[in-house]
Amino acid sequence: MPLPYHQRTHTCGELRAHHAGQEVILAGWVAHHRDHKGMVFVDLRDRYGMTQLRFGDETPRPVLEEARRLRSEWCICIRGVVAHRGEGNVSPRFYTGELPTGEIEVVVQELEVLSESPPPPFEISDYTSANEEIRLEHRYLDLRRPSLQRNFLIRHRVAKTLRDYFDAHGFVELETPFLTKSTPEGARDFLVPSRLHPGKFFALPQSPQLFKQLFMVAGFDRYVQIVRCFRDEDLRADRQPEFTQLDLEMSFVQTDDVIRMAEGAIAAVFAQVLGYDIPRPVPRLSYQEAMDRFGIDRPDTRFGLELQNVSDLAAQTEFAPFRQAVESGGVVKCIVSSDPGGKVLTRKTIDTLAEELRGIGAGGLPYAKVAADDQGAPKLETGIAKHLAPIAADLLHRVGAKPGDVLWFMPGNYTAVSKYLAYLRLRLGQLLNLMPAQQWNFLWVVDFPLLEWDEEEKRWVSVHHPFTSPQDEDLPLLFSDNSQHWGRIRSKAYDLVLNGVELGGGSIRIHRADVQRRVFQLLGIGEEEAQQKFGFLLQALRYGPPPHGGLAFGLDRIVMMLTGASSLRDVIAFPKTQRGTCPLTGAPSTVAEKQLAELFLRTITPGK
Amino acid sequence: MPLPYHQRTHTCGELRAHHAGQEVILAGWVAHHRDHKGMVFVDLRDRYGMTQLRFGDETPRPVLEEARRLRSEWCICIRGVVAHRGEGNVSPRFYTGELPTGEIEVVVQELEVLSESPPPPFEISDYTSANEEIRLEHRYLDLRRPSLQRNFLIRHRVAKTLRDYFDAHGFVELETPFLTKSTPEGARDFLVPSRLHPGKFFALPQSPQLFKQLFMVAGFDRYVQIVRCFRDEDLRADRQPEFTQLDLEMSFVQTDDVIRMAEGAIAAVFAQVLGYDIPRPVPRLSYQEAMDRFGIDRPDTRFGLELQNVSDLAAQTEFAPFRQAVESGGVVKCIVSSDPGGKVLTRKTIDTLAEELRGIGAGGLPYAKVAADDQGAPKLETGIAKHLAPIAADLLHRVGAKPGDVLWFMPGNYTAVSKYLAYLRLRLGQLLNLMPAQQWNFLWVVDFPLLEWDEEEKRWVSVHHPFTSPQDEDLPLLFSDNSQHWGRIRSKAYDLVLNGVELGGGSIRIHRADVQRRVFQLLGIGEEEAQQKFGFLLQALRYGPPPHGGLAFGLDRIVMMLTGASSLRDVIAFPKTQRGTCPLTGAPSTVAEKQLAELFLRTITPGK
Repeated sequence: MPLPYHQRTHTCGELRAHHAGQEVILAGWVAHHRDHKGMVFVDLRDRYGMTQLRFGDETPRPVLEEARRLRSEWCICIRGVVAHRGEGNVSPRFYTGELPTGEIEVVVQELEVLSESPPPPFEISDYTSANEEIRLEHRYLDLRRPSLQRNFLIRHRVAKTLRDYFDAHGFVELETPFLTKSTPEGARDFLVPSRLHPGKFFALPQSPQLFKQLFMVAGFDRYVQIVRCFRDEDLRADRQPEFTQLDLEMSFVQTDDVIRMAEGAIAAVFAQVLGYDIPRPVPRLSYQEAMDRFGIDRPDTRFGLELQNVSDLAAQTEFAPFRQAVESGGVVKCIVSSDPGGKVLTRKTIDTLAEELRGIGAGGLPYAKVAADDQGAPKLETGIAKHLAPIAADLLHRVGAKPGDVLWFMPGNYTAVSKYLAYLRLRLGQLLNLMPAQQWNFLWVVDFPLLEWDEEEKRWVSVHHPFTSPQDEDLPLLFSDNSQHWGRIRSKAYDLVLNGVELGGGSIRIHRADVQRRVFQLLGIGEEEAQQKFGFLLQALRYGPPPHGGLAFGLDRIVMMLTGASSLRDVIAFPKTQRGTCPLTGAPSTVAEKQLAELFLRTITPGK
Repeated sequence: MPLPYHQRTHTCGELRAHHAGQEVILAGWVAHHRDHKGMVFVDLRDRYGMTQLRFGDETPRPVLEEARRLRSEWCICIRGVVAHRGEGNVSPRFYTGELPTGEIEVVVQELEVLSESPPPPFEISDYTSANEEIRLEHRYLDLRRPSLQRNFLIRHRVAKTLRDYFDAHGFVELETPFLTKSTPEGARDFLVPSRLHPGKFFALPQSPQLFKQLFMVAGFDRYVQIVRCFRDEDLRADRQPEFTQLDLEMSFVQTDDVIRMAEGAIAAVFAQVLGYDIPRPVPRLSYQEAMDRFGIDRPDTRFGLELQNVSDLAAQTEFAPFRQAVESGGVVKCIVSSDPGGKVLTRKTIDTLAEELRGIGAGGLPYAKVAADDQGAPKLETGIAKHLAPIAADLLHRVGAKPGDVLWFMPGNYTAVSKYLAYLRLRLGQLLNLMPAQQWNFLWVVDFPLLEWDEEEKRWVSVHHPFTSPQDEDLPLLFSDNSQHWGRIRSKAYDLVLNGVELGGGSIRIHRADVQRRVFQLLGIGEEEAQQKFGFLLQALRYGPPPHGGLAFGLDRIVMMLTGASSLRDVIAFPKTQRGTCPLTGAPSTVAEKQLAELFLRTITPGK
């Protein structure tokens, strides 16, 4: 008589001391099994937890014999009776909360092996040392690991919480097409050949940007979607060719409205998943201030080490790199780091940092250490201290340095100095352990420039996209004929940053035809080109568009932050490798000649 | 001073008599505008409803002048005061419930034109006569129509209700890849060329079938996803190349468990959207009974007109088509339709039906009418009545015909007779008006055959797919060497049918290795072929798979039923035309040579 596995009475995470004496039916996987004094103990695992099974004296002989055959990862069903393990035998992990079933065990009466398994190619454990390729190839086993199960349960909870939140706020989840038109802007599109229209192609969407604006023109007022997006980029460290976005758009709104709504959504998620209340409103920082103070538009504000402008003092020294930087219109900036005892920032570490900086293009890493003079007051020594003598007192006072500090300098043009010091700041943050994992520093970066000068192409380009609205008070700059003003136009764009990671961003869009025309003018996009590139959106924007704006968050990245995962691959069920392949399915793969013939396509061998 | 449109106080569907006297800010679109006795009346529309604006004596002169400029579909914002229209002026549509704001109007004080619009290319109305191509080209205007807005609000509610339901039942929404491997089974794949791996291709998924089974192997226990799927089929009447599926899978279950869960989900949706309680459990019909009684495996059970087998009587006639059918192992079946007064089933209509049946392959449409004899008892006349004389009494008694009925016959082999009579039955149902729109007849069709003989390929093929489990009591047939038995193996597959439309279906999958091997054997799929076609799933099923099963529903079709839409294109925001194109974006389109070069692809001109 087979066991009615479809009538499980409990999951493997459910039984407690008060269930003692109850007859139960459980099903799951053999996580561990051991023979002990003629008995067999099995840890039975499912998505919900782990329960100890005991095959002993009370177990019928043939069942005990069958239990001896059990091996790891066999799928079984049992009927038995819950028993308290007895005081001395309660699992220590029960008391730490790791094993809530650790007080009890199930004394097995009946056993059915539902399916067997060969030994898995790697241990199903969070401590497995198997390489990622093997784990991805057997992803169905990898996904049995409790930490990955947890990641995906959290991912589900995040998506559900977001949907509940936006539904409660009157948003409509609307689906946008996946087979759409290739647009020449942005990243590279994945193409999909059309069989019915030979020689023509669909493209997979990089984002539903254009469609969500159409939804606003259509009057849907509040749109949201959790949606897959695609970018055929060269794969860098932690990128995936397909990724999931939380995408939203609202009509009749200004920046504050979108920001308030988005903050509420993220706060709902953090409260639900971590029980953490994000202090709101989330602080805002202008792009310019972020660049000035942190050298980057997505600063990690969990720690200080801010950039300080010491150009005026630097100009007073004879130190050539400083003088030259200032004289050629650049800057000299400085970071002060504390390293009490000098344990971390050894000579060797400083050399390594300098080497890393040279690797990203810096000329060097001038620094000086702060020691105490006879009176215990700070004084500069080592490094470039001797060059700084004329300004030492002013400098130490200005940057507020104390004995034991290190001063790090960077001379050069503003952009380069920002880049190098932003890098250095993060590295110092890591080395000095200033980035606590459980601290959540949210930050909106606002007031981005609308346009930036592209030195290579010798033209103005959009910092975000050509539909981003300029700020109302900067409209005179936009309509000014003096191109000197154009770089100073600020946009209604905003990015949400968490601990130095950009979670997403968006903008208020242009809804005024005259403003849109002017932006295209400054971008050097003619009528014809605009029609060709953005035809249907421009067409739509003629028909009474409402003022609107929105944003998009990277869902994978949010889940990664919430779970503490170290890679996107730990929060995507079936991810691609860094080479853009799937070791599980073998995708991409060759296809039948017939399939290509139907598409009127021929492949070319590279190099020919 | 521009109006603060982002501080709308109400939507256009919200104001009632009790708001009279309140100052409000509204924003929306000019639906209608008319000058009347020096005043201007505007119907302001948004997603939430319509509100009448009055620009009259109380309106400042310049605002009134500006109001005269307003045209249809301009986007505006106003500030004004709510006023009761007065008893005589309440909209009649207020009393019918069509216009909940019909008691009031807003007396406008301030007006801001947010954006203008040229006259739209078609009237934004549910009564528009514009052709679909034009409407799809300007989909953002088409979507402003109240009926389409409603469809998408319902669609959102359906998806949300399903997600709430499955979340409450412990399902995890897990995302599956879109860039995956092409499989040679099933419909045609859309291919995506890989740039990083020249000559290789991803395929867009036809369904997440394999991945959801992997989730079960991975122990996720209960999976659900609302997910886009893709099929590159030749486009028929109402098909879309991309469509949305509600996809689910459960572990440790049998048929009843999946059916119960799915019924609950559909019931939740119907209760939420229509306030309709589906009587549960939903009736079940075996595949065989459905075929016998309705000639089709997705019968519309809102009406009778069932097929009746009269082969034994037919064999007693001299009517050649009947005798031949029976003698060659076929059947003669009969439908009885009532048409009191004979108003519908005129000679002309009958000729049309016969013509239609010939169009789908039938040889003819033998029929006879039932008249009353002198005693008022039924008797046959017209049509083939004279051939039926010897059996007339038995026949009339058997099928329970009354005067005024028509008897429709079909002789031939079982499959053909089923097909033709199923068609005829539906047509009669339409003609005789037997299919009330607001009646919901749900039905599970179960006990499908596992295998069917493919006469062309001369081999057994799966009715569903090769992972569908046979029924336990039919395992002896499966393992029988007598191939006569194989067609009688019933599977654990089930389809949900609503008013003759298949909403979806699924099955319990095979989790026993020996059963899976045997099924492949009967299908003539060798070890190597199986590995090549289903490699990674077979591999996964080695490692302790749990018993599992699931199903998939077509979400688009469910929404279509709920909204009463007449086409899938009315429930998909940006659908493709029947030629598989998007008139809005122009997709598919040609792409830059550079894009093809990067993919190492060349297009071939058809015909060369």
